[in-house]
Amino acid sequence: MDAPTTQRWALCLEYDGGPFVGWQRQAGGLSVQQVLEDAAAKLARGGAVSTVVAGRTDAGVHAAGQVAELMLAAALAPERLREALNYHMKPYPVAVLAAARAPEGWSARFSAVRRCYRYVILNRRARPALDHGRVWHVPAPLDVTAMQEAAQFLVGRHDFTSFRAAACQANSPLRTLDRLEVRREGERVVIEAEARSFLHHQVRNMVGTLKLVGQGSWSVARVGEALAARERSAAGPTAPADGLMLMRVVYPTALEPFG
Amino acid sequence: MDAPTTQRWALCLEYDGGPFVGWQRQAGGLSVQQVLEDAAAKLARGGAVSTVVAGRTDAGVHAAGQVAELMLAAALAPERLREALNYHMKPYPVAVLAAARAPEGWSARFSAVRRCYRYVILNRRARPALDHGRVWHVPAPLDVTAMQEAAQFLVGRHDFTSFRAAACQANSPLRTLDRLEVRREGERVVIEAEARSFLHHQVRNMVGTLKLVGQGSWSVARVGEALAARERSAAGPTAPADGLMLMRVVYPTALEPFG
Repeated sequence: MDAPTTQRWALCLEYDGGPFVGWQRQAGGLSVQQVLEDAAAKLARGGAVSTVVAGRTDAGVHAAGQVAELMLAAALAPERLREALNYHMKPYPVAVLAAARAPEGWSARFSAVRRCYRYVILNRRARPALDHGRVWHVPAPLDVTAMQEAAQFLVGRHDFTSFRAAACQANSPLRTLDRLEVRREGERVVIEAEARSFLHHQVRNMVGTLKLVGQGSWSVARVGEALAARERSAAGPTAPADGLMLMRVVYPTALEPFG
Repeated sequence: MDAPTTQRWALCLEYDGGPFVGWQRQAGGLSVQQVLEDAAAKLARGGAVSTVVAGRTDAGVHAAGQVAELMLAAALAPERLREALNYHMKPYPVAVLAAARAPEGWSARFSAVRRCYRYVILNRRARPALDHGRVWHVPAPLDVTAMQEAAQFLVGRHDFTSFRAAACQANSPLRTLDRLEVRREGERVVIEAEARSFLHHQVRNMVGTLKLVGQGSWSVARVGEALAARERSAAGPTAPADGLMLMRVVYPTALEPFG
């Protein structure tokens, strides 16, 4: 029997970032990447397997629609691959929602034209019992109108040095933020951010800064000044990982793997 | 200094039922009641404290708006009581959302005129990674229209013997179900049930039965026949606890503790 030819697969993933050191493999602990690659290796009959992902989420950051790329020498129908990976990842809070053969020329990372993140602040006095680990708990009331107004300084093409982690490996601090929306849903303040790509910690640094506006420590205009300063110390602190979730990754129609 | 007089308090609670044996104290493990009473005892300077609750949730059942009644000899402002209880319950996924002095003649259990439960089925192939422990995972597609139609047999005043746990301690199997609604929200099937009171396992037994209709194993009409049979074995199995949440408890306007 011939060995099955190696095939490029696109996987849509959901995971709870809580127990992981983040997407990427690290010496210090268990990563989502390792859980996925270990499961895939079982299907590749022990052969090493490597994956590339659309958004390398940090420790504690969740995903509802992460997209990963997997090279695998296994002749399987897409549904069988999804079921087999989910079976082998079973003890961990990681699930493959969809698997598809990757379109010709598709890359999970480089073909993506939009990444959509959602950040949730639980804005009430009582600490979260049901949403522990999924929200940032901010007890003092936030002025969402001011936050939404301030957020608009950040939309568009800018040098985001003030909102970039020191460890960020991107060549350029220039990014185009397509959307940044702040709205209240009852006790929650929901912040949605969309861009082709983000700098390291960019969403969490923007949220940490907007929170200062919401609590009245900062004027709306100061967010524009922080951006113009092009200096990390000019912006607010990094919001906790817990509240952040990668919602979905968008590809050009011709390269959309999941139809 | 005089000892503070004992006061009746109303507490609105949120909890994740996962780690608990249920609301009620049991020899076999930790209950929500014990966590709350242990925290309250610290405020009562070691005196024993007892609570009564609106809905005695089972092991694994969650609450977003449980209401408990607490007798406490401590002179505290309502906000201080809430903060102090939350402080002492900290390691556990239980939070007091609101505390209020109970209106004259109010009982958490006997004054309640409506209990509102929500049951969530995750209806997709992939197992839940983000919602593990919060949903019932049903992989095969459910016909929600048929479930909603069948549910209407159960609305109204009936003998619910067919949907009652063997261990149920209620004197009568007669209950008035005010609302039972089944709807789809994307991958989720959401079932909302409202009544003055429910029999033990009634919601989970109704859900387990409607699921048989949704998957096509049962006709819509068979739910009416199961009800008429007045025999537990005539209805479907008990749905898992994970998907059930007590959403809120309604009191008559004159006795509403949280204004």
